[in-house]
Order: sequence, then C-alpha cells, then structure tokens
Amino acid sequence: MPKNYQCFIYVTLRPSVLDPAGTAVESGLKQLGYDTVAGVRIGKYIELTVTAADETSAREQLDQMCDQLLANPVIENYRFDLHCQ
Amino acid sequence: MPKNYQCFIYVTLRPSVLDPAGTAVESGLKQLGYDTVAGVRIGKYIELTVTAADETSAREQLDQMCDQLLANPVIENYRFDLHCQ
Repeated sequence: MPKNYQCFIYVTLRPSVLDPAGTAVESGLKQLGYDTVAGVRIGKYIELTVTAADETSAREQLDQMCDQLLANPVIENYRFDLHCQ
Repeated sequence: MPKNYQCFIYVTLRPSVLDPAGTAVESGLKQLGYDTVAGVRIGKYIELTVTAADETSAREQLDQMCDQLLANPVIENYRFDLHCQ
C-alpha cells in the first residue's frame, strides 16, 4: 500500500559559487552589531509530501525532482530528509 | 574561551500565509509527471558561523538575528540547529 512521505529538501550553492545575497546579509548583521558572524550562505528549504510504495522509491522520485526542477545541479547541491507519515 | 558555532537556520512561511512560489513549484512538478506531490512550501535555509562564550549565548544571538533581520516574524517562523566546531 502506498505511503505518504513528508520530505525536507535543502538546496545550497556549491562552495565555489559566490553568494552575493549571503554577503549582503552578513554585512547587514555586522551593521546590527553581530561582529562575530561569518560565512553566511543562503539556500532554499523546501517541504513537500510525496506518495510512494516504499522509501527507496520516494528517495528516487526526490532525486529526480531535485535534478529536474528544484535545484540547478551546475551551481547547487541538495540533500533531503524524509519521514513516513 | 569563546567557541565557534556552526548554525543552520530554517525560515518558513507561517501555515496561514499563502505561498505562491510553492504553488508554482507544485504545479511544475505535476507537469513533469510527479502526480503524488502535495503541500509544497518554500522557505529559506541559512548557514552561518557565530562566535560566543557558550551555547546559550549563541542561541540568544541567533534568536535576535532572526527576529531583527533573517526572518519576518509577522509572516514567517524560524528554527535553528547549532553545533560547536
């Protein structure tokens, strides 16, 4: 019987890719007085549910979704967690 | 002695707030053939490091950063994890 999986996907820029938004946020935090902040990187966080026969199939679907739409594999990495509901 | 903490911050829209970007991504995934996808919500994922005397102080700084700059408390929730480096 198919099960629902709650999925949490984290998409981050590859370390070699510049992150201007992260740099701007870091500068903003420093101006607010948070002097010790460093290495700010901004990514995307996506929650969704998917129905699949088993966890392996759910993970395969998620991998394909990330490669096709949710992440840009040229400049971004992704990882995900999932929980059976 | 101050320690460095690696922080992972998740900013999500409050459940009552509409998420047009999430709706668009869900529609895109369905068009690609992922018919069982539902409840897509898009948030922000922020990584940073902060230096603090102890974990309590690091958590306090992070709470303030989120309230002041990283999240909009009117429409967004946030949570974070941190690890001592």
